[in-house]
Amino acid sequence: MPVLGIDLGGTKLATALFSESGALISKEVMALEQRTGREVGKLITGAVERYLDAGASSPVRAIGVSVPGIAHAKGGTVWAPNIPEWEDYPLLQEIRGVVGKLPVSIDSDRACCMLGELWQGNARGCKDAIYLAVGTGIGAGILTDGIILRGAHDIAGSVGWMALDKPFHDKYIPCGCFEYYASGDGIAKLTRELLGEEKGYDGPLKEHLPEKLTAHQVFDAYEKKDRVAVRVMGECIQYWGMAVANLISIFNPEKIIFGGGVFGPALRFLEPVREEARKWAQPISMTQVSFEASGLHGDAAIYGAGYLALNKISHT
Amino acid sequence: MPVLGIDLGGTKLATALFSESGALISKEVMALEQRTGREVGKLITGAVERYLDAGASSPVRAIGVSVPGIAHAKGGTVWAPNIPEWEDYPLLQEIRGVVGKLPVSIDSDRACCMLGELWQGNARGCKDAIYLAVGTGIGAGILTDGIILRGAHDIAGSVGWMALDKPFHDKYIPCGCFEYYASGDGIAKLTRELLGEEKGYDGPLKEHLPEKLTAHQVFDAYEKKDRVAVRVMGECIQYWGMAVANLISIFNPEKIIFGGGVFGPALRFLEPVREEARKWAQPISMTQVSFEASGLHGDAAIYGAGYLALNKISHT
Repeated sequence: MPVLGIDLGGTKLATALFSESGALISKEVMALEQRTGREVGKLITGAVERYLDAGASSPVRAIGVSVPGIAHAKGGTVWAPNIPEWEDYPLLQEIRGVVGKLPVSIDSDRACCMLGELWQGNARGCKDAIYLAVGTGIGAGILTDGIILRGAHDIAGSVGWMALDKPFHDKYIPCGCFEYYASGDGIAKLTRELLGEEKGYDGPLKEHLPEKLTAHQVFDAYEKKDRVAVRVMGECIQYWGMAVANLISIFNPEKIIFGGGVFGPALRFLEPVREEARKWAQPISMTQVSFEASGLHGDAAIYGAGYLALNKISHT
Repeated sequence: MPVLGIDLGGTKLATALFSESGALISKEVMALEQRTGREVGKLITGAVERYLDAGASSPVRAIGVSVPGIAHAKGGTVWAPNIPEWEDYPLLQEIRGVVGKLPVSIDSDRACCMLGELWQGNARGCKDAIYLAVGTGIGAGILTDGIILRGAHDIAGSVGWMALDKPFHDKYIPCGCFEYYASGDGIAKLTRELLGEEKGYDGPLKEHLPEKLTAHQVFDAYEKKDRVAVRVMGECIQYWGMAVANLISIFNPEKIIFGGGVFGPALRFLEPVREEARKWAQPISMTQVSFEASGLHGDAAIYGAGYLALNKISHT
C-alpha cells in the first residue's frame, strides 16, 4: 500500500505516490498561482482528499510533507517566508482534519532533501552527510549519526547566515553574509554591482536587463570568459569553499551533496570549490569527505517527504 | 559504588572518584613531567591499578577517560598532538589489560567538557548545547538532541579551523583561521606583531618579554586601556562573535558554554562577543540561545569522564 509525499514550494505544489519499496508510482504538480494563507492550505488538503478518495483498492497509508521554511515539530505549525500569511500556519491540524488517524509528518524542505538523498539519492548508506541547498536562498539539511539535526527550536541548518568575511556590513541584515554573496540572488546582485562600475562594458551580459539578470546568465557568460562573470564567480567560489570547509571542520561528514536551483548549473564549479575548501578545512576531515551532486535533482524534497511518510509507518 | 574519572591533559593527569549520585569523592593530580608514549600509558594504568587495589570495600564500577585529542570510537586508540608518540595510541586496550571486564569509555576532552557541563555544570537539562573551549587551541564539544556530535571519524567539533576572513593566508595552515587569531596563542602572537610595528611603545606590555607574552597579560593591559591590547582584543572579539554566530545559525542551540584557559579571564568580554554575534547570526536562533561561563571551570573534563563511566554502567 502506497504512501503520499507532498512537496510545497514557494510557487508550486507537487504530490507523489510511492510504493513501500520506494518506487515513485505517480507525480502531479500544481501552480500555487496567487494563492495565500488558507487557500494554500486548502490546495493541500484538497489534493490529499483526492488521493484518499482515489485509493479505494490501494489506500494511502501515511503522508509526508516538505515545506519551504520551518516546520515546528511540537505544534505542527509552519513558518514559510514566501507564502503570505504562513507565519505560524496550523498545517498539521488542517491535514489531520481530512485524514483522521492516518499518520502525517511535516519537515522543512532542507531536511526533506537530505532525507530524499539518504533514501534514494547520493547519500544512501550514509550516517553523516550534509545537503547544501543553494538557490534563491541558502540552507542545509544536516544528517548526524543517522538523525536530522533540528536544534532546540527546529531552525538548525541556517547556513546562509554564516559569517565569512569581516567586518560586518548592514547589507547582510536581511539574509546573512554567506547568502548575501553566494546565493542565486547574491550572484545576480554582485554582477549588477560590478556592471554598474564598469565603463564601456561590451560583454555578453549587456544583452540582459540588469534588474532581470539571473545566476544562470552569469554562468553562461563565465563560459565565454567574460571578465565580470569571471570576477563574480571567483568571489563566489571563495565563499562556497569557505562555507563548505566550515561544515567539514564542524561535522566531519562523509558527504556533502550540492543541490538547489544553482547546483544544477554551478556543478561545473565543484572542483574549484573543493580546492578552496581544502585550504581552510580541518585537513584530516577534508580527506574523509566526498563532494557530490544531488542524485535526485529537483525531486529530492518530494522523495524526502515520501521517506517521512514511510518512517511514520515503520514507527507505528 | 564509585566510578573513576580520568582527565589526561597535555602536561598533567587528573583522576577522581565520583559516587553514583555524582558527588566528587576525591581527586588527585600528577604532572606528566617528561613522559612520552608508553610512559604516559603506564602512568594511567598505574593510577587505575592503585584505585582498584584501594577499593576493596567499595570497588570502582566503571572508568571514563578524557584525552587531549581524538578518541577513535571503533578501535579505542587515541591521537593526542601534545603527547609525543600518541599518534594512534592503543589506550583502551592498555587499560583493559589491567581492569579485565570493568567497563571503560574514552572520549575527547572537548566531548568530556560538554558532558561534564551537562551532568553537573551549566548545561544541566539541555539537549542542544555547545562547549566552546578556547585555550592554547580552540575546539568545541557539541551536544545535539542529547547526543555528542562525533562525525564520521570522530573529528567533529574542530571549530578552530573555521574560515572567518577571506582571502586565505598560508599562516593559517598549521591551525586554521579562527584558532590563528582567537586562541590564547593567537592573542599573544597578534600582540607581538603589533608591538613590533609600534614605534616608541611605552605601555604596560613592555614589561614582558615578547616571546613569553601571554593572553592573560594582554587582558590586564586591556583593563589599563593600553592601545595595543585594545586593538588586539577588538579583533579577537570580532572573531569570537563571528564563530559563535556560526555555531548559533548552524545548530540553533539552547546554550553556548565558554570554557578553556582563556575563558576564565576572557569572560569579561562575553557581552561584546554577544553583541558581535548578534549582528551575524540567524536572528531567531540568536534570541533562543544563552551565553554562559563554564560551571565547572578546570574540572569540566574530569566530570565528563566521570559521566562517561556512569553511562557505561547504566548501559550494561
